[in-house]
This record gives sequence, structure tokens and C-alpha cells, in this order.
Amino acid sequence: MYRSQTCGHLRSSDINKEVVLSGWVQKVRDKGFMIWVDLRDRYGITQLIFDEERTSKEIMEQAKSLGREFVIQVQGQVIERSSKNPNMPTGDIEILVSNLVILNKSLLPPFTIEDQTDGGEDIRMKYRYLDIRRNPVKNNLIFRHKVTMEVRKYLSDQAFIEVETPYLIKSTPEGARDFVVPSRMNEGQFYALPQSPQTFKQLLMVGGMDKYFQIVKCFRDEDLRADRQPEFTQIDCEMAFVEQEDILNVFEGLTRHLLKEIKGIEIGDFPRMTYDDAMQKYGNDKPDIRFGMEFGELNSIAQHKDFAIFNDAELVVGIAVPGGAAYTRKEIDALVDWVRRPQVGAKGMVYAKYNEDGSFKSSVDKFFDEQDLAQWAAATNAKPGDLICVLSGDTLKTRTQLSALRMELAQRLGLRKKDEFAPLWVIDFPLLELDEETGHYHAMHHPFTSPKPGQMELLDSDPGAVKANAYDLVLNGNEIGGGSIRIHDKETQATMFKHLGFSEEEAKAQFGFLMDAFQYGAPPHGGLAFGLDRLVAILGGQETIRDFIAFPKNNSGRDVMIDAPAFIDDAQLKELNLKLDIQS
Amino acid sequence: MYRSQTCGHLRSSDINKEVVLSGWVQKVRDKGFMIWVDLRDRYGITQLIFDEERTSKEIMEQAKSLGREFVIQVQGQVIERSSKNPNMPTGDIEILVSNLVILNKSLLPPFTIEDQTDGGEDIRMKYRYLDIRRNPVKNNLIFRHKVTMEVRKYLSDQAFIEVETPYLIKSTPEGARDFVVPSRMNEGQFYALPQSPQTFKQLLMVGGMDKYFQIVKCFRDEDLRADRQPEFTQIDCEMAFVEQEDILNVFEGLTRHLLKEIKGIEIGDFPRMTYDDAMQKYGNDKPDIRFGMEFGELNSIAQHKDFAIFNDAELVVGIAVPGGAAYTRKEIDALVDWVRRPQVGAKGMVYAKYNEDGSFKSSVDKFFDEQDLAQWAAATNAKPGDLICVLSGDTLKTRTQLSALRMELAQRLGLRKKDEFAPLWVIDFPLLELDEETGHYHAMHHPFTSPKPGQMELLDSDPGAVKANAYDLVLNGNEIGGGSIRIHDKETQATMFKHLGFSEEEAKAQFGFLMDAFQYGAPPHGGLAFGLDRLVAILGGQETIRDFIAFPKNNSGRDVMIDAPAFIDDAQLKELNLKLDIQS
Repeated sequence: MYRSQTCGHLRSSDINKEVVLSGWVQKVRDKGFMIWVDLRDRYGITQLIFDEERTSKEIMEQAKSLGREFVIQVQGQVIERSSKNPNMPTGDIEILVSNLVILNKSLLPPFTIEDQTDGGEDIRMKYRYLDIRRNPVKNNLIFRHKVTMEVRKYLSDQAFIEVETPYLIKSTPEGARDFVVPSRMNEGQFYALPQSPQTFKQLLMVGGMDKYFQIVKCFRDEDLRADRQPEFTQIDCEMAFVEQEDILNVFEGLTRHLLKEIKGIEIGDFPRMTYDDAMQKYGNDKPDIRFGMEFGELNSIAQHKDFAIFNDAELVVGIAVPGGAAYTRKEIDALVDWVRRPQVGAKGMVYAKYNEDGSFKSSVDKFFDEQDLAQWAAATNAKPGDLICVLSGDTLKTRTQLSALRMELAQRLGLRKKDEFAPLWVIDFPLLELDEETGHYHAMHHPFTSPKPGQMELLDSDPGAVKANAYDLVLNGNEIGGGSIRIHDKETQATMFKHLGFSEEEAKAQFGFLMDAFQYGAPPHGGLAFGLDRLVAILGGQETIRDFIAFPKNNSGRDVMIDAPAFIDDAQLKELNLKLDIQS
Repeated sequence: MYRSQTCGHLRSSDINKEVVLSGWVQKVRDKGFMIWVDLRDRYGITQLIFDEERTSKEIMEQAKSLGREFVIQVQGQVIERSSKNPNMPTGDIEILVSNLVILNKSLLPPFTIEDQTDGGEDIRMKYRYLDIRRNPVKNNLIFRHKVTMEVRKYLSDQAFIEVETPYLIKSTPEGARDFVVPSRMNEGQFYALPQSPQTFKQLLMVGGMDKYFQIVKCFRDEDLRADRQPEFTQIDCEMAFVEQEDILNVFEGLTRHLLKEIKGIEIGDFPRMTYDDAMQKYGNDKPDIRFGMEFGELNSIAQHKDFAIFNDAELVVGIAVPGGAAYTRKEIDALVDWVRRPQVGAKGMVYAKYNEDGSFKSSVDKFFDEQDLAQWAAATNAKPGDLICVLSGDTLKTRTQLSALRMELAQRLGLRKKDEFAPLWVIDFPLLELDEETGHYHAMHHPFTSPKPGQMELLDSDPGAVKANAYDLVLNGNEIGGGSIRIHDKETQATMFKHLGFSEEEAKAQFGFLMDAFQYGAPPHGGLAFGLDRLVAILGGQETIRDFIAFPKNNSGRDVMIDAPAFIDDAQLKELNLKLDIQS
């Protein structure tokens, strides 16, 4: 038996007990005649004491030899501390050690195993097993476990069945890029790893499973942007005999349950906003509504003067920055520079100070008088003391730019509060999205999403106007989930594939099994998937998913700890009927 | 709203209620003036009634048009059935339909959607989404969900943390064959899919996670024997600061919990048996102990006569078949033929009838007298009325043959009872196993298993004699779990790799990260993994795992429903820097 208790267990009620503890040496304080050791495990830290008067010379010597991260086992008596530490759950007691076994030594770790470590990202990833010993990482992983347990309990109590779908499936190259897996037994053929279990969960609905969920790894071979992973985890759900309203209610219930159980926060009905409204008010289909700064469109009140920049613009739009009238010229210039950065891409920014005394001062005083500016203030909901920031240009681009500015300023103003949670349903997404490069429409959600009733007819005449039975769940400015009501009849699905540019043969080769299934009594169905990594990060009050994944990959898709991917044997390649084809 | 209740919900207390139901048409009975339809969903079947007197002509016509597996929605009133069906939970009521909507038609399904279907395995797999509508398959999947929920609840309550380990890892070709995944971003390099999260769970122990579990897909590219799948699911567990006893207790607790919660069966302490004993008594390291028929070794009492076959054999061993003395000559000849089949491989079988009157009659009466045979009876624990079956030859082969015979006879005699559960720990496995083809030893469990204390020294002198801290959990003759105490120091691990034929470079290239980790304070640790597919099948009283997997693959590793694996685009290959290399 390696321990009678963990290092987080003992209290003053345990005083005088004889105990055995095991753990890691967090810290040694050696005063010569007295040595204190902080012994750490997952559950906490317990202070050990060795002293000349009560501890044998041999054990004193052993204690002096201990280094950071040594693994030891001690036997001893729980005694009262002379100076208690009220900040530690075990701070009332210490262990007077009578026996010490070094279970394993440790080299000096390459970074400190402390909440605030001196190790940079790269070294922490290489020695991730040491990084996980640190409270912030360890607690994130435990937090993730708690979230998934609550998700499973909630959905299971609602009669959802978790069904495992296969990982070795078929490549469908028109979506994101698949990871493929050569098949040795089927010469020249490949499996693909699933980008999501989409078609399988739909087949489970055809199969009468009624309510399905799965917490499941998904794979996308994309060039990795910051904070994307080639493998990521989804809470994948599907229901039969449902309309959009049913699905929103169920998953609003799940999210409310998580906020309550995990964060202790009670939230009422989630607000809903159409995609069009979200774009108009926030320039974004995943608005952070923890704070205001809603867009005010100024076209009707800013295009009547000689200011060509506005007059030539498709959209003139502004936001009011709380307290921004106090910004210095230098601060405002910095803001202008910020929107001009290539990542944002605005050409410039017009601003108007709404002074505390009710007067206005703008960068376009030449063109606009106080009466104009008062109208801007009304449209942007600005109060005395605010700064009105105005961008103009193409509608979509300008909205995106102003949205970026809104988020940046909210961050600077401390309006994106970690402990505040503002969920929002964004509904009525467009079915199709125009790819500006190719001029083709592609599915905004995926090819299985159904158009709103009666809108199929628009597909030919005005494809961009067709709205879908699709919805996203947004939390604090992040899309944490999204889904749709699916097509469930073969004809509609075939029409959709045609509009997405599939030939009949391509559609049949890739999704024939699904269209076949729709001919054998497919029920109406729909669903939703949450991105677990992001959900957990946001619930944890953070935005970086990497900190909530035990063994993440870097931006080149490498696991630097195990050093993967790696070259493989020629024999292995030959068995798979493959040859490398490397230009260099 | 598609339904107010499910098809399994309504009872006589609901009579007179107006309800809306949706589901599949299971059966239509059309008496002309009256039509009954069985409406089915996941939750049950509800009978619908249409009759000339109470139903509109239009709806009668619609009802007549319904075919099997049509998806419909009905509105109507719950009424009392004139002839109740006590075998159905909803058998007291039926729905008098006032409105009928056909939500989706169905082609005639290629097999009947009944508990006993007329569809063969192949067609059921191709249309698995229809197969899943059948109760036996549907209930198996729901049963699997219940088991995994109980596993998660139990382990979570015991402070285990479920941690997701990566799927894109590194190939280690000396185990079973890996599935590999070409990396587009890392030219010429490959990920591998995990055969198990073994090294990652050990790193989590080094990382202080203390108690880990994960229900996780694993992958092996092996030539598929019957009832093996290229992707399978493990309940993977690991604990730090434990000895074998701690692990056996925790997972005995889990198994006992499952038997109680899922099957309602209370089982006390699980028996334990050493590997050596299991081999000697049952010829098998996963004995089914629901019944006796233990082996009796006969060398000392059967090698003293002129019977060369026995005298030349390394082992002479028999079992007593209950009631077998009554077998006819023809039946016994059939048994002899059975052990001679190439799958079993015995050269022949000696038998002795222990007649009810206490006399003996054997196939070797020329060599052995009644006194000899009485000794055989004592050694095999035969009673009057039994048949003693004796095989002889090389120890290992003969044991395997007699074990096969024992299992076959137990099956025929009805001794392998579905509703009886007999768990057993098999412990003290050998560390190494001799590969007779190559003459090399390889790890019986895996290279991370620790030898029993004090046995490292034997590694050089008598490698086959070294016992490991390794254990299997056996249930009804199936290995459902297995694990070991691991090596946790670099030197022992290096020695082990050396003995397994790794060069230092190979060991470093493949497992350097693990040996590095062992230098930074690795705690003693160990664990176990359950094969979920088999565990669920056995708890479900069946032995075929395929029936408990939603979308299984066939023996060529193909998913015949989606038709995977498949050929991929040349462009896709090119992006991966690969070329097909097919001889033919």
C-alpha cells in the first residue's frame, strides 16, 4: 500500500493519526536542524517536517538529499502545525516523518512546476507530462471531465442514446480536406477519418434511434490557424420528429444545465436573433452580447453632405465607445492605426467626440455640423462622454471591420467579463454562401441542411436569399454549437447536390447510401453539434482551447512530445502499396 | 410539433385524450370497413384504428394506401380496445384516428423489420439503418449505452478523470500492425492511429493525474479473424501509487457494479487463479468456470503399460463428461472426429465409459484394466454415468485441444448458461512468450509490463520463467480485461527493450519520450483495459460483438453500407506526396 490518504485529505481532526502518504516533492526548506518538505499529489499539498530532535539522523540525511519532483513515500504522525497556513486546506497540520522511501528520483525539471511557470509554450509542450502536473493545466483537464460527465448525464436523462459511429469511413473531398488511411487489405483504397459523424447520425435517425448523441473526435486536415487542432472533439446530437423549436429548447436546456451545474449561474430564456439582425447590429454572426456598442447605420444621416468617402460608400456605420470622449488625440490616432492594420483592413476611421457638456468635436467638422453629429449620436446610442467611431465602405467588409473594432475596444474597456455568460441563438442563416473567388455558391452549413419551407423555389432565381433551418448557439462572442433541420427526402437532397455543383454520378458515389436510406422511410430530423474544446474553454473563462486538451498539436500539426508524425518503414509502405512521391 | 407522446407511452389512464403520434407503419390489417395499423417508434408500438363509421372516407383511403415502413403522423383520440393485448404495454388502448399525414413513403424494405428477420447478414449490413430499426439490434445499442454510462458514473465517483488522448500519434511497428495516416503538412511523414492509448495513459500518471480512464476507439490493421474489428473500443484505465491488489479491487468493484446495475446479479469476491493453474486445470488462460470438467493429469497413472501413444507423450490428460457413459458408439465416434478436425488438431482420443453400475469400458481395454480406469476416474473426478475423454501429446497443444473439447461439450450439454456470470481473475502471467517460429521471446502483455519483484535476474538465465505483475479479468470463458503494473524507471525499461530485441537506437526513436518522462519523477503505476465490445456482448448474454456495434465492418475490413474504403482522387494523393504502387 503506497498511501493511506492523499496529500489533500488531512485536517486537524486527524491529529495523532499514523499515516502513509506518497507524492512529489514540491519544495524543500532546509534550516539545517529542521527540514520542511511540501509533498504534492493531484489532490493537494501536505507539509512534512523532519527535525533533529525527533527524526533519526539517517532520515534527516535522506531528507536533505531530496530534490524537486522526487517521488517519495513517507510514514509519520499527523501533528498540529505551530504556524498554521489558512490558505491551504491542510494548513493546520503537518506530518512528523518516521520513515521515508524514495520511490523515484527526478532530474531537475526544465521549467518550474508552479501555477506561474517560467517555461514557454514550446518547452511545456515537449514536456507536457510535467506541464500537466501544474494546477492550471491539471484543473482544466479535470474541468473538462466534469463538463463531459454533466453533458452525458443530462442527455442520457433526456432519453438520448450515445452511439459510437465508425472512424474509418469514406473520403468526401468537397468539404474540408480529409485525413485518409490507406487500406492494406483493399489494395489502392483508402478510408477517411470523419470530419464529423454527420451522415451516420442521420442514418441513425433513419434507423429509428430517435435521440442520438456522441462525444466524438473529428478530424480536419486544414492549414492550422492559431487555436485550431487537426483533431478536435464534438458533442454531436441528432433527434427525429422535431422542428427547429424542439431542438433549440433541448439544447438550450443542456446549456442552461451546464451553466448551473458547472458555473453556478442561473440563466433564463436565451435571446434569439436572426442572422440578418446579428450582421446589422454587430457585423458578426456570433456577437458578444455581454455589452452593448450596437452598430448605428448612418447612411440616411451622413450621406447628404459633400463628404465623398461616405457618399461613395455602400454602408456608413458607427459605434459609441463608452467614455471615449476623454481619449487623447494620441489615443485616437492609435485607434485609427489599429483599424488600418492589414488584419482589420479599414482605410480610415471617422470619429466624433460627444463631450460631457453636450458639445461635439469630430474629425469631419468641415463637413458635418453639431446637428448632424447629434443625429449620429442618436443612431449609435451615444451618451455624453462617448466617442463615436465611424467606418464606411462595402457592407460586408465594413461590418467585419467595425465588429473587430467593437471587440477590441470592449476587451480594452474590460467589458468582456470572464464570469459573465451571455448565450444567444442566431437563427435563420442563409442556406448558401457565395464563394467570391469561384463565383459558386456553397452550403453555409452543409449540404444536408434543409431550406425554410417554401423557399426551394428561390434556389434558381435568387440562391443567396434562401434561408435555412439552421441555427448557431453563441456564447460570449464564440460559436459554441450549430446545427440544422436536415433534408429527409431523396428528391430535395438530389436538388441540393445539383445546386452545389455535384454531378449526379458524384452525388451517388459519395452520398448514394444516404439518398438510398431516404427512400426507406426517413423521418423528419435535425440536430446540432457543440465544439467541446471551445465550450470547455469558454466555460472555464478562457479562450485558448489548447489549454484544455491533454496532448495538443502545434500549428504544424506536430505532437512535439512524441515527435509525430514521423517517417515509416519502407516495408510498411510496401504493404500498403504506396510509394513516396516527393519533389525536392 | 410532430407528436404529443411516443408510441410506447399511452395507457388506459389516457383514454379520451386527444393525442398526436408519429412513427413507422409496422403492419396494416385491412378488413375493408375497418383498418388497424401498428405504429412503431423506438419506444414501442401503438395500435391505430380507422373505421368506416367513425373515420372520414378520405382518411380511410389514405390509410389503405399505407405500406410497411411508411413514416406517418396521426392525430386522434385514445380509446379502449375491444380486445386487449396483455403482451403489449399499450395493449389496453388504441387511437381512433381523425387526421393522418404521410411524412415520408418507403420502398418495400429488402428484409422484414421484425425480431426474427428474413434478411441474411450481408443484406442486413448493407441496409444497416433498416436493421437498426429491429428490436434486437436497437436494444443492443441501447444496452451498450447503459453499460458505458454506468462505467463512467462508477469510475467518476471513484475520482477517475476521463482524459482524451490523441488519435494521430506515431507508428510503432513491432506490435500489431498500425493503420497510418499520411501527413500533408509534414512531407513524407505519417501519423499512426493508436492500438491503445498505452503510452499516453502512462504519461498522464507521470503527469500526476493519479486516476485516469477513457472509453476510446483503438485500431489494429490485422487480418480479421471472425468477430474481430479493425476499430474497437476499450475502457482504458490507469492508476498511480498502486500495487496489483489495489487495481484488482477497483476493477472487481466496477465489474460487480455492472453486474448488479445492468443484470441485477450480486456476486461476491471474484476467485483468483494463477496462469499456471488455469493452464493445468483448464488448458486455457481464460477458463469458463461456470461448470466443472476440470482436467485430470494422468501421466503417473497411464504411462506404466505398453500403450506407446501415452508412453511417448509429454502429457496425458482427461476430462469427465457428465452423463457421457450413455453416449452411443456413433456419438463417441463423432466426438473423435470432432477432435481430429484441423481446427482442433488432435491425432485421436482415448475414452473410458464409467458405467452407472460402477464398471468401466474403454477404447484401450487391451492395455488398461478396471483398476487403472478407476484411477483415471479419480483423477478426472468422474462419477458413475460419465465418459472420460483422454488426449495426449505435447503439453501445450494437448491442453489447447482438450480445452476446445471441454468448451464444445459444455456448449452441447447446456452448461454455458446465458444468465449465469462467473468472473475470474487470472494472475501471475509469464512476462515473456516464446515465438516458436522465430525462436525469440516477445512480451506476453506489452513491453511496459513489470516483472514480479526479484525476477529481473532470471531474464538472462530463464526468460520463460519470469512472471509478470500482469492479470486478466475473465468472464464466462472470455477475456474481458487485462492489465499490469508497469515499469516506471528508465533502467528497467531499457533492459526490457533490450531483451525484446530492440537496439538502443530503436528504443530511443520509438519510446524515447516515455523513457525521458521516467527520469522526471515517474510514480509507480499500473492499469487495465476492458474490451468494451466483448464486455457488452457477454453482459448481453451473447458472444458476437458485431451485434453490439452500430456500423461494424465485415471480415475484409469493409463498411458495405457506405462502401468504404474507396479509391481517392489523384489530386488528393499528390497533395499527400504519395503514389500508388500496385503490382498486377
